[in-house]
Amino acid sequence: MLITLTTDFGYTDPFVGIMKGVICGINPQARIVDLSHGIPAQNIMAAALVLRQSAQYFPRGTIHVAVVDPGVGSARRPLLVEHDGSYFIGPDKGVLSLVMKAKRPTRIVHLSNPGYQLRPTSATFHGRDIFAPTAAYLSRGTAPEAFGETTDDFAKLIWPTVLKTETTIRGEIVYIDGFGNLFTNIGADDLKELSGHRLRITLRDLSILGLAANYAAVEPDKYVALINSWGLLEIAICKGSAQKHSGAIIGDKVQVTQVP
Amino acid sequence: MLITLTTDFGYTDPFVGIMKGVICGINPQARIVDLSHGIPAQNIMAAALVLRQSAQYFPRGTIHVAVVDPGVGSARRPLLVEHDGSYFIGPDKGVLSLVMKAKRPTRIVHLSNPGYQLRPTSATFHGRDIFAPTAAYLSRGTAPEAFGETTDDFAKLIWPTVLKTETTIRGEIVYIDGFGNLFTNIGADDLKELSGHRLRITLRDLSILGLAANYAAVEPDKYVALINSWGLLEIAICKGSAQKHSGAIIGDKVQVTQVP
Amino acid sequence: MLITLTTDFGYTDPFVGIMKGVICGINPQARIVDLSHGIPAQNIMAAALVLRQSAQYFPRGTIHVAVVDPGVGSARRPLLVEHDGSYFIGPDKGVLSLVMKAKRPTRIVHLSNPGYQLRPTSATFHGRDIFAPTAAYLSRGTAPEAFGETTDDFAKLIWPTVLKTETTIRGEIVYIDGFGNLFTNIGADDLKELSGHRLRITLRDLSILGLAANYAAVEPDKYVALINSWGLLEIAICKGSAQKHSGAIIGDKVQVTQVP
Repeated sequence: MLITLTTDFGYTDPFVGIMKGVICGINPQARIVDLSHGIPAQNIMAAALVLRQSAQYFPRGTIHVAVVDPGVGSARRPLLVEHDGSYFIGPDKGVLSLVMKAKRPTRIVHLSNPGYQLRPTSATFHGRDIFAPTAAYLSRGTAPEAFGETTDDFAKLIWPTVLKTETTIRGEIVYIDGFGNLFTNIGADDLKELSGHRLRITLRDLSILGLAANYAAVEPDKYVALINSWGLLEIAICKGSAQKHSGAIIGDKVQVTQVP
Repeated sequence: MLITLTTDFGYTDPFVGIMKGVICGINPQARIVDLSHGIPAQNIMAAALVLRQSAQYFPRGTIHVAVVDPGVGSARRPLLVEHDGSYFIGPDKGVLSLVMKAKRPTRIVHLSNPGYQLRPTSATFHGRDIFAPTAAYLSRGTAPEAFGETTDDFAKLIWPTVLKTETTIRGEIVYIDGFGNLFTNIGADDLKELSGHRLRITLRDLSILGLAANYAAVEPDKYVALINSWGLLEIAICKGSAQKHSGAIIGDKVQVTQVP
Repeated sequence: MLITLTTDFGYTDPFVGIMKGVICGINPQARIVDLSHGIPAQNIMAAALVLRQSAQYFPRGTIHVAVVDPGVGSARRPLLVEHDGSYFIGPDKGVLSLVMKAKRPTRIVHLSNPGYQLRPTSATFHGRDIFAPTAAYLSRGTAPEAFGETTDDFAKLIWPTVLKTETTIRGEIVYIDGFGNLFTNIGADDLKELSGHRLRITLRDLSILGLAANYAAVEPDKYVALINSWGLLEIAICKGSAQKHSGAIIGDKVQVTQVP
């Protein structure tokens, strides 16, 4: 059974390795895949987005553990969410919510049974003490209900709204990847409504004419707008960093208008 | 059989990947877990601490390889240490020593048998030529004695001493994690002797009143002192970096005093 | 069957994790090893060199996927190359070429069969849509010919030439590792022709007398020249960064002369 890990623990410390030790100790057969441990510290939206974009490529039954947990040790609940035949484990801070989209999850379990956790449970590392053992026991066949009582609600992130008029779409930057490519919340479907027209994409004092098919469609060092591999409108620089050149940050507004 | 890897090789170069290639070539069934490859360059104390804190979470029989090796190619010996049913492989520079604590290891083997090493052995990459093949053959069932002659001693790191009076405990910062949290050498047990009293924790010109139960117990951007997941007194900033705000470095003195 | 991954995707984003999800979905038994995801963005030479130095340590039959792909989405072909019983998958940009050296590969297949790719294929992430599924199906036993038509040629990188006279060898820096060690294109074989003489190695205004056996042969903070674990002449600083101290960059000329 496959277990994926997503955290903001970085690559300097052994925290992720310790979680893997706990998992292997409980289920020596578990297969573990790192999604990312470079989530910006305590950036729940980035983790939730990473999980949403990644989970669909993993086989049904995969167990996804996401630990971005500014509230560790406080009253926020640890959760196990079953959805579309796969499992999502993490703190109830919204990190699990984007993957569900509009649909309700099959089951939500509050991880309240100490029998499947390391004792004593630390106040600062539930990844090791609660989430890793839960994933490991689940991968060994423990039933979801065994981990605690079922619950009805869980924290949801607000995905920023895309505003549309007949000739304009307004969105914002929601993710910036390691190449400095700027991902917006404007999806390919949103843009379909403007199709048939030439488009102008604006961000800060930047204006890009037309959607390109790929990065190589423009010359090096030129800005390009395209639908990226996550199905989102992206602003990039061919062989360069759009983030560095534009100074753009998460939350910056992006506008798409029809060119008359 | 599980093999863990801890190095200061970083994540840019393929050195760790090459070690994994060597391991898989010798034992295709070996399972490999990365503890950390972000150990600061040649920082033996950090590697030894990481190993000490992590090894306990892995199943008995795990083979831990730690390569932080400023003396590679010189006369320092490559070692295999058996301790509490698990194995530790690396250069005899102290990196294996903290995990033993007071106890003597079961067996120490000087890796002098060239039959279990890559030939010719390079002067700069014993991780590939000596430590990876040793781990791989050991995981396949080769007996520890086969790798070389047994020896009695190995290099030990000096864990900085915690000084105690009736009302005061003095220690120092021994590790700083990727969040900028400051780990001291003062353990939960040390603090028990002052229990029942309200405590003041001081570091540089910083003074923190009381131990908190978790990070979320204080407001964002405030300093907090707590016992962390390694059982050590830690100074942190809720949702921030104590290292950046305080400028603290490894070795800075930390004092805990009873508040009258 | 072992699959290795080499990319310039970095460790912040989930792109590598997504590729692993695709692979595990197609072949749950596949074993995946990361060679490096820290290749400098779009640096094909670095990726090709990493692949050349690493592939030889993996067992025969290993499938190496290398995605450094400035031309993703353009007309450059995706390729599968069979060579010496192992497999190399990636864009036809030269990243696969150094591993072949002078020898011709056994087989080159243009990955033109959409039946072994994710549909629709994005314009920006062929690692996910083409290269990961190809590696996964190949690891499951699909014959190389099934992925597309055989082809005769593929892009080759020019390895910078080493110039020799009777008393002098001229090369250049081709790789700089995470420790700041400077790797040249001058191999141990090149230097053999000058053997028996004391050598002077010069780089910028730097002059090093003699080849050392290992880093520890010189005092800390001193420059040292040696034959490194890749069989290349390397300029390093014992316990320091030669790159930082010298300001050297890829392409800087290095000269080796006999000392009379």
